Amino acid sequence: MNPVAPPNPDFAAATRALFASQPLMGLLGAAPENVSPGRVELALPYRADLAQQDGFLHAGVVTALLDNACGGAAFTLMPPGSGVLSVEFKVNLLAPAAGSSFVARAEVRRAGRTLSVCQGELFARGEGAKGGAKDGAKDGAEKLVALMQATMMRVER
Amino acid sequence: MNPVAPPNPDFAAATRALFASQPLMGLLGAAPENVSPGRVELALPYRADLAQQDGFLHAGVVTALLDNACGGAAFTLMPPGSGVLSVEFKVNLLAPAAGSSFVARAEVRRAGRTLSVCQGELFARGEGAKGGAKDGAKDGAEKLVALMQATMMRVER
Amino acid sequence: MNPVAPPNPDFAAATRALFASQPLMGLLGAAPENVSPGRVELALPYRADLAQQDGFLHAGVVTALLDNACGGAAFTLMPPGSGVLSVEFKVNLLAPAAGSSFVARAEVRRAGRTLSVCQGELFARGEGAKGGAKDGAKDGAEKLVALMQATMMRVER
Amino acid sequence: MNPVAPPNPDFAAATRALFASQPLMGLLGAAPENVSPGRVELALPYRADLAQQDGFLHAGVVTALLDNACGGAAFTLMPPGSGVLSVEFKVNLLAPAAGSSFVARAEVRRAGRTLSVCQGELFARGEGAKGGAKDGAKDGAEKLVALMQATMMRVER
Repeated sequence: MNPVAPPNPDFAAATRALFASQPLMGLLGAAPENVSPGRVELALPYRADLAQQDGFLHAGVVTALLDNACGGAAFTLMPPGSGVLSVEFKVNLLAPAAGSSFVARAEVRRAGRTLSVCQGELFARGEGAKGGAKDGAKDGAEKLVALMQATMMRVER
Repeated sequence: MNPVAPPNPDFAAATRALFASQPLMGLLGAAPENVSPGRVELALPYRADLAQQDGFLHAGVVTALLDNACGGAAFTLMPPGSGVLSVEFKVNLLAPAAGSSFVARAEVRRAGRTLSVCQGELFARGEGAKGGAKDGAKDGAEKLVALMQATMMRVER
Repeated sequence: MNPVAPPNPDFAAATRALFASQPLMGLLGAAPENVSPGRVELALPYRADLAQQDGFLHAGVVTALLDNACGGAAFTLMPPGSGVLSVEFKVNLLAPAAGSSFVARAEVRRAGRTLSVCQGELFARGEGAKGGAKDGAKDGAEKLVALMQATMMRVER
Repeated sequence: MNPVAPPNPDFAAATRALFASQPLMGLLGAAPENVSPGRVELALPYRADLAQQDGFLHAGVVTALLDNACGGAAFTLMPPGSGVLSVEFKVNLLAPAAGSSFVARAEVRRAGRTLSVCQGELFARGEGAKGGAKDGAKDGAEKLVALMQATMMRVER
């Protein structure tokens, strides 16, 4: 789906700078693990203050991570001078978000001049955050916990 | 759509206790403004560390607030001994989330034994957080910035 | 949400002509009941060949009706020379679509220059299509069976 | 994601019988191309009466095909005596649905006892239905035109 040469040769640095410019990413402790043309991975260590009532990662944090990964993936394929905004997204929560860390992987499925459509997956890693393997991912393994389908918009900067 | 008498006579206290048990609500600074049968309002003051790259409230925070309002609204109509989990939701972002505070209003559209369908609206209040009224809500007025359509699930506690 | 004067003074005739130009509407037997600025109602009589395996209206037909009502509602607020395309939509099915006829009501929640966000509701009317009132709408009443949240795009003609 | 042995050894015949029991599939001319555990492919030849105003396949037909493929995929992993209903779905339309035929491919991403989450993709095949290759799929190739993310529910029969 992705072009051989992204229109911004500095796409990786630009995308990492985009993440660094978002205060919420700092508050949550999220950071990019991988940035390639049309694909982004964002990681987040578990913290108790990011949880919902059962100790699992709150759906709002799940969404923040997936939304940023999708927006970043779309941004990697945009020309210099672009900004990116979320138009809409849909999230399905497949399993309790229990883990010692999480990674959101997003991919562009259609890169348009203005609108891009992306899909993202959130995986839990490590021992379950509450009481171990029963509710979460086994040590060393990854468990799929959420899916996103999103529309991102390019704006002029 | 909502029953005259909710099955849990202590629904209001139970729903406020649900919000109080969510660490993320404390981190974000969100609090219930109103809890009635099938309806919940959650308010959040703007803070710079909740923003995306343009200073607007991050879509993940918008979603956290709407998701909690929808989950709380569904919870008000559940019998004692219930818990609530998000199954899925869809968010449309209609305008930049610029304001000095925000309120999410959610309503149950169908209350099933297991699954409930809710709709939520997020409004910005007060002066725009960045550069005033041009991008955000006028003083004293409210501006619609996002819509959610969500499925919530009752679980036994 | 809607302007006092829509930018196309002939919006009603233009929107009815849009529906008339869609062959699928003829195949399904759908027709506009009401067209006003930012709002459209589309009606459809039940037919057995529009059903899924239980005799209820198929979710694809539910969606076709809601999608057209949302697209038409967005179109009423567009200037002359516009066309409308669906960007994305989300449907929640709240109850079996059992009835002798159905009506989709859609409303624009945000009318942008290019993108419009709409919400739609599908109601069943009359006796349930299969075995009467148990599964469907009571005589003379309407029953809410589905919700849509959608993004529509204006294109130049 | 899919179990080695689906709980219904006759899953393929049961799923094909499910499609055969849906009158709308006959009206649209859709038929299963492939049924395997957790995966279904449904094909549909283009017909002018299935179109929207530009001659492309109507989004309601796109949805009907994707919804049925997702429901069928979920059904292949359900035990004997099950029925399947759509709870909700989200569709992104990526490109005009122009082609001489279409195929919907769906896959189960999470198979729960009651709720299953599926993803589907719709591809256009053959020459574009209106004016050839410019707007549609090249001869022999497939072009991705829509994505679905859906929740399906098991019911007892």
